[in-house]
Amino acid sequence: MTSPKSLSRTAPSTVTATTIVSSLLTVQTAGAGFTDLSTEVEKFVREAGAREGAVTLFIRHTSASLTIQENADPTVLGDLMTALNRAAPENAGWRHDTEGPDDMPAHIKSALTQTSLSIPIGRGALLLGTWQGLYLFEHRDRPHRREVVFHISA
Amino acid sequence: MTSPKSLSRTAPSTVTATTIVSSLLTVQTAGAGFTDLSTEVEKFVREAGAREGAVTLFIRHTSASLTIQENADPTVLGDLMTALNRAAPENAGWRHDTEGPDDMPAHIKSALTQTSLSIPIGRGALLLGTWQGLYLFEHRDRPHRREVVFHISA
Amino acid sequence: MTSPKSLSRTAPSTVTATTIVSSLLTVQTAGAGFTDLSTEVEKFVREAGAREGAVTLFIRHTSASLTIQENADPTVLGDLMTALNRAAPENAGWRHDTEGPDDMPAHIKSALTQTSLSIPIGRGALLLGTWQGLYLFEHRDRPHRREVVFHISA
Repeated sequence: MTSPKSLSRTAPSTVTATTIVSSLLTVQTAGAGFTDLSTEVEKFVREAGAREGAVTLFIRHTSASLTIQENADPTVLGDLMTALNRAAPENAGWRHDTEGPDDMPAHIKSALTQTSLSIPIGRGALLLGTWQGLYLFEHRDRPHRREVVFHISA
Repeated sequence: MTSPKSLSRTAPSTVTATTIVSSLLTVQTAGAGFTDLSTEVEKFVREAGAREGAVTLFIRHTSASLTIQENADPTVLGDLMTALNRAAPENAGWRHDTEGPDDMPAHIKSALTQTSLSIPIGRGALLLGTWQGLYLFEHRDRPHRREVVFHISA
Repeated sequence: MTSPKSLSRTAPSTVTATTIVSSLLTVQTAGAGFTDLSTEVEKFVREAGAREGAVTLFIRHTSASLTIQENADPTVLGDLMTALNRAAPENAGWRHDTEGPDDMPAHIKSALTQTSLSIPIGRGALLLGTWQGLYLFEHRDRPHRREVVFHISA
């Protein structure tokens, strides 16, 4: 383990929290792959008039998930799919195959990524890093209708 | 990456947040496997009288974790254990084996799943999807006493 | 799945939530490995005067992440790196290698661990378990400057 040799922190800023704002996003996916939700979440934060706080996203499914990944070079997302396909290959002796060979691998990929994610809000904007995109990650081969709850505490 | 061709969102609903409610759950596990916490969390939300907000769960251990998975066909949970056993097998050259061959694999399985999870609350109910169950995931072979903090902001 | 044979929960404690406190931590990492943030987060909680609530950490990068792991035996952290190196090896046919062979493996390791983490606060202290440490997990070989947002709702 490396020691925190050079570690600095800004002075805390404090505000009074008064509101919770919620909304349900419905996404029609096109099959396995990524749907960028960043713009939609930013729009929600603006609509809610949130200045300081956090937005929590929650996906109401177990064969699709959420992930924050690089938004610049699309081969990152492609390679991430490859990595998860290797970790959860089809036809690898799974007992659960009710809906086909992509069924159980989709559950495993969901378990290895995120069902809920929280992103802080500062000065009315999501505090995502420059290269961070927020994605719905569809793990089933065929298109699905997915629901994501947006929840702001600000 | 697929573009969000068909993406719709409900109008935001806003409430005033005023309370934080906390509780500590103690679970005696029966060894490696899953304990369904969904009913207990729902009961906590009702007791707290929370209408809109979110509940955060936090497990105070590094060899057991939290996961949201399908609650319908139990073979999903079995296959998920198989997948994690393949990702973190016993006797694979780990240096940390203080408490036996299942010790380090348990830490790895915890790192690959969740220590904290947030689930939104709407109209007094957890906004889990129809097929989502919330589980404590024991990774050690033998029974353990585990603590999970429940925390509502509503 | 094991049934919750022995499951007990403390009576809920309720407080009025009024404040959100935020701060940005900058960490200079020394290359692949762990930086313990536990003390810094505890200091932030004390400074903020938070008694009951939760702190959310968010790392603004996609090639470094957050994880909660055992803080006692350092071989746990070493073995965890080994496990992730096996799950995301270098030179394994990745298309994204803009910044070298450690580039794409770093993104995969980030996706398999955490970008955001929430830890409850009780009686003014982080409710981490005895053996839990909170770590920034650098996945790139060379030192990097990393930003982590601290966010308290209390």
